[in-house]
Amino acid sequence: MDKQSALQPERIAIIGVGLIGGSFSLAMKAALEKVHVVGYDRDEINLAAARHMGVVDSVAHDPGSAVKDADVVMLAIPVGQYDDVLPLVAPALPSTAVLTDAGSTKSSVVENARKHLGKAFERYVPGHPIAGAEHSGVRAARVDLFKEKDVILTPVAETHALPCDIVRKCWEACGARVDEMSIEQHDAIFGVVSHLPHLLSYALVHDIATRADANVFFRFAASGFRDFTRIAASNPEMWTDISVANREFLLLELERYQKQLKLLSLFLQEENTEALLAYFKLARDARRAWMESN
Amino acid sequence: MDKQSALQPERIAIIGVGLIGGSFSLAMKAALEKVHVVGYDRDEINLAAARHMGVVDSVAHDPGSAVKDADVVMLAIPVGQYDDVLPLVAPALPSTAVLTDAGSTKSSVVENARKHLGKAFERYVPGHPIAGAEHSGVRAARVDLFKEKDVILTPVAETHALPCDIVRKCWEACGARVDEMSIEQHDAIFGVVSHLPHLLSYALVHDIATRADANVFFRFAASGFRDFTRIAASNPEMWTDISVANREFLLLELERYQKQLKLLSLFLQEENTEALLAYFKLARDARRAWMESN
Repeated sequence: MDKQSALQPERIAIIGVGLIGGSFSLAMKAALEKVHVVGYDRDEINLAAARHMGVVDSVAHDPGSAVKDADVVMLAIPVGQYDDVLPLVAPALPSTAVLTDAGSTKSSVVENARKHLGKAFERYVPGHPIAGAEHSGVRAARVDLFKEKDVILTPVAETHALPCDIVRKCWEACGARVDEMSIEQHDAIFGVVSHLPHLLSYALVHDIATRADANVFFRFAASGFRDFTRIAASNPEMWTDISVANREFLLLELERYQKQLKLLSLFLQEENTEALLAYFKLARDARRAWMESN
Repeated sequence: MDKQSALQPERIAIIGVGLIGGSFSLAMKAALEKVHVVGYDRDEINLAAARHMGVVDSVAHDPGSAVKDADVVMLAIPVGQYDDVLPLVAPALPSTAVLTDAGSTKSSVVENARKHLGKAFERYVPGHPIAGAEHSGVRAARVDLFKEKDVILTPVAETHALPCDIVRKCWEACGARVDEMSIEQHDAIFGVVSHLPHLLSYALVHDIATRADANVFFRFAASGFRDFTRIAASNPEMWTDISVANREFLLLELERYQKQLKLLSLFLQEENTEALLAYFKLARDARRAWMESN
């Protein structure tokens, strides 16, 4: 980021100083010498830890106080909380502040922003950093979390160009690659490659855990099961929010996926080894090509 | 293994010198000073590599020659090949030879052994080592592959006690923990914790790979997808064999799993956040407890 540029924020507010918000703060502070980051988090213990660790420069105890005088506001809260938090942010926003977010789904977040922000919605740039989050909370925050990671921005018709440019430059200063796409494309893609596998993984563990003899099954589960179910250890609150926010795509994708399972069942009933082999080969080859391109 | 014991094999035949057969050979040779291992593999290049690497002491070019004079015969071939290979093994078997196998499903393997082995079926001890197999072939063989791993034996009514004891001692000499259970229990358990997740993982990749815009999806797939689909990189031939061999359990389990997906769809349609949260929490807690106990 060009430090001489008028685009350079001097004061950044982070609403939700967890893994994502905290890592964004660390990366901004590393990239911009004079920036001041103020943090807000509904979890006061987490917020105190963020201040103590130097992840933020100061703290605020409500979202409105946090965004007062901010040049850039980063919303890094669960996607289910926008409808409650944005009404607290809107009245305190400076008239030039640029807003962005880090939500894993975009439709519901943008819907809430449009509803609550009024004129400031022109300066709202929806975003989604694609960065791992096996652990959560500010203690897991890392200055390089976004380095060489993808960040998707989904500006809408109302979004002005300058805020979009500022947010893009912030992410680039974090070391991320920035892409733009439509909200619909974003939610369709991540519905398939992220949200659906989470549901499928939770479903397998739920299926086993609710059997009377669950322990017998778990006793012999090995490395294949471990990898397949790693995402079933994800935060239930976060994934409830994401699932509900992207429910329309997820319902279509669950239907579509079940057609795959019905096809496999048909091949098994027919003992159709040729069809099964072709099916598995196509998937194996695609998985292999994906790994090689990554 | 007590080297003074009459149970100690002097000549072991390995039919199928891949990851499993090769690792078994290495572990036996490490445990038993004087043992001679003869290997057979339908892939002559793999077999030559096994001999060159010292994984086996000598090679045979047909299954019958391999088992001649053997004290213990280990069948480590894909579960779809027993019906072809056992008729070649049976006529050449010494009258005291003990047989075992390493097949991932047991019903079809045992059915074939009963059909082809005649009287020798009393000395056939069905087995299944639960050991990772991300890479296959003899080059991936390791002397410690089975160390602290589970091996399941599924003796049937006809199985004599002495062969069972010999096979158990062989696996214990490899450093494995040996359990016994029924064929039905084995195939039910591994149908759920291993075979089903493989089908589910292949199904997700197949679903994406067969879309016109597959590349757009793969482009943004990240670490959750990578772990969920690791087993979709598994050997298609092996998993076709396993799926067909255990198709009856798999058909039931696919039905059962789809009920879980229908339940999730219902919760999404209703926007029932409480039910989703409870569902995800139960799975997360079970996954966490499983990891902690492993």
